[in-house]
Amino acid sequence: MEKMRRSERIAAITKTLLERPRQLFSLNHFTELLLSAKSNISEDLGIIDETLKSLGLGQLETISGAAGGVKYVPGLRGELSLEFLNQLCGKLTNPERILPGGFIYMNDLIFDPYISSKLGEVFATRFSQLTPDYIITVETKGIPLALMTAHSFSVPLVIIRDNSNVSEGSSVSINYVSGSTRQIHTMSLSRRALPEHAKVLIIDDFMKAGGTARGMMDLMAEFNAQVLGIGVFIGTVEPRTKLVDNYVSLLELERVDGLTREVIIRPSQTLRLKTKEV
Amino acid sequence: MEKMRRSERIAAITKTLLERPRQLFSLNHFTELLLSAKSNISEDLGIIDETLKSLGLGQLETISGAAGGVKYVPGLRGELSLEFLNQLCGKLTNPERILPGGFIYMNDLIFDPYISSKLGEVFATRFSQLTPDYIITVETKGIPLALMTAHSFSVPLVIIRDNSNVSEGSSVSINYVSGSTRQIHTMSLSRRALPEHAKVLIIDDFMKAGGTARGMMDLMAEFNAQVLGIGVFIGTVEPRTKLVDNYVSLLELERVDGLTREVIIRPSQTLRLKTKEV
Repeated sequence: MEKMRRSERIAAITKTLLERPRQLFSLNHFTELLLSAKSNISEDLGIIDETLKSLGLGQLETISGAAGGVKYVPGLRGELSLEFLNQLCGKLTNPERILPGGFIYMNDLIFDPYISSKLGEVFATRFSQLTPDYIITVETKGIPLALMTAHSFSVPLVIIRDNSNVSEGSSVSINYVSGSTRQIHTMSLSRRALPEHAKVLIIDDFMKAGGTARGMMDLMAEFNAQVLGIGVFIGTVEPRTKLVDNYVSLLELERVDGLTREVIIRPSQTLRLKTKEV
Repeated sequence: MEKMRRSERIAAITKTLLERPRQLFSLNHFTELLLSAKSNISEDLGIIDETLKSLGLGQLETISGAAGGVKYVPGLRGELSLEFLNQLCGKLTNPERILPGGFIYMNDLIFDPYISSKLGEVFATRFSQLTPDYIITVETKGIPLALMTAHSFSVPLVIIRDNSNVSEGSSVSINYVSGSTRQIHTMSLSRRALPEHAKVLIIDDFMKAGGTARGMMDLMAEFNAQVLGIGVFIGTVEPRTKLVDNYVSLLELERVDGLTREVIIRPSQTLRLKTKEV
């Protein structure tokens, strides 16, 4: 009977913690929810922590003291991330994905909730040293990845619009030059979407010359925000010099050849090296 | 020792199943992952199922036979859904949310990954009898809710664009008249985003006259898709007659008064009644 209760508690605690990564839950939360003593809950947490670590899926972090508690910190083990990214590369090299203009069709992948949530975990693992208050993206295709990254950090998502929208109140707009098409675009963000001096992490699906990311940086400066990092799903190898520094791309796209129907794409070097070190 | 192993298995199985709702996992998947006998895994699944049910958070569904397995079916107990929706109503009635034009600012809520994931569970519970192949939305504000609903169903999300986009190949466009502003807009969807004859569930953040939903229905007809249902987060009480039938709104918005600074909003009647019946 005692055995049963432990198992049930573990199922309940696992669901609660994993549903809100990096969110601190007090031990009292669980003692009240599960009508169990603190010592039991502590042991349960130890078991869950061990299991997550042994599977390479993250860990629990315990903070002691009156304001303390426990939280689930996602962290995909290096080779699991790499395996997952390699699978995606396998799909992306399918010549049927090649679109006119040298683009690759990838909406079926980045709009898949399982894939985007896994990529969110990969981003959260890669940026695990950062503590952003907000995840920032610009509409539209980066939204699923950015939302799932926000989920892994348990912080709100802020979506920059590519025009100003009546239903969001006063907004700040900037013009930016798209690095690849050299066209001038506008992006804007509602004043109330982001407080001043926030710490933000920018997430997007694709970077070529970095014009859009540069625009987001400039817009963030208007809000006196501190940009802690930039993460993109796919970055092109060329041009080597982007309009922003210090971005992280999960995959690097070397070539899309519309004539030979060839796509060359691979996990980024930093990720490959990181995994080898381990 | 045996006790420890069971607890660890439960933590691992819970994480695996909850991460991919409605996705069928064979028992072999777990016997291999956890190096444990089928009989043990079956008992573990029973414990997890009991726990989820007793907490009102869904259940496991077991399918027997060679192609069988187990899946987690999200299902928020009625009063938990209602409590959550009531909390959101409390936030939405804050007069500071009133924007010029009688709009309510709610991006901070619907772009919050925890809130949108809970709303996804509420939609999945409300539409639990449906088996959509795809969740459909139109950019931009409905995307987080639609993605999280797609996550709860473990099906892909398809995003209709409000203009045609170069990087998605050939697309089908339709014109539609926004029910509230009477303006003509265009929405389009890449040909390859949706196969013919798919079963779809439409999810959006807001419905007033239903013009956008009507447009989505029309666009779906171009793909010979079968629209199983329409779910919106907030529907206005007026106009009573919408341009689409059979939609489900989680909240009903009766009034936004810019002068008296009053917002009247509540969980929809069907949800309130459903809960009372239980």
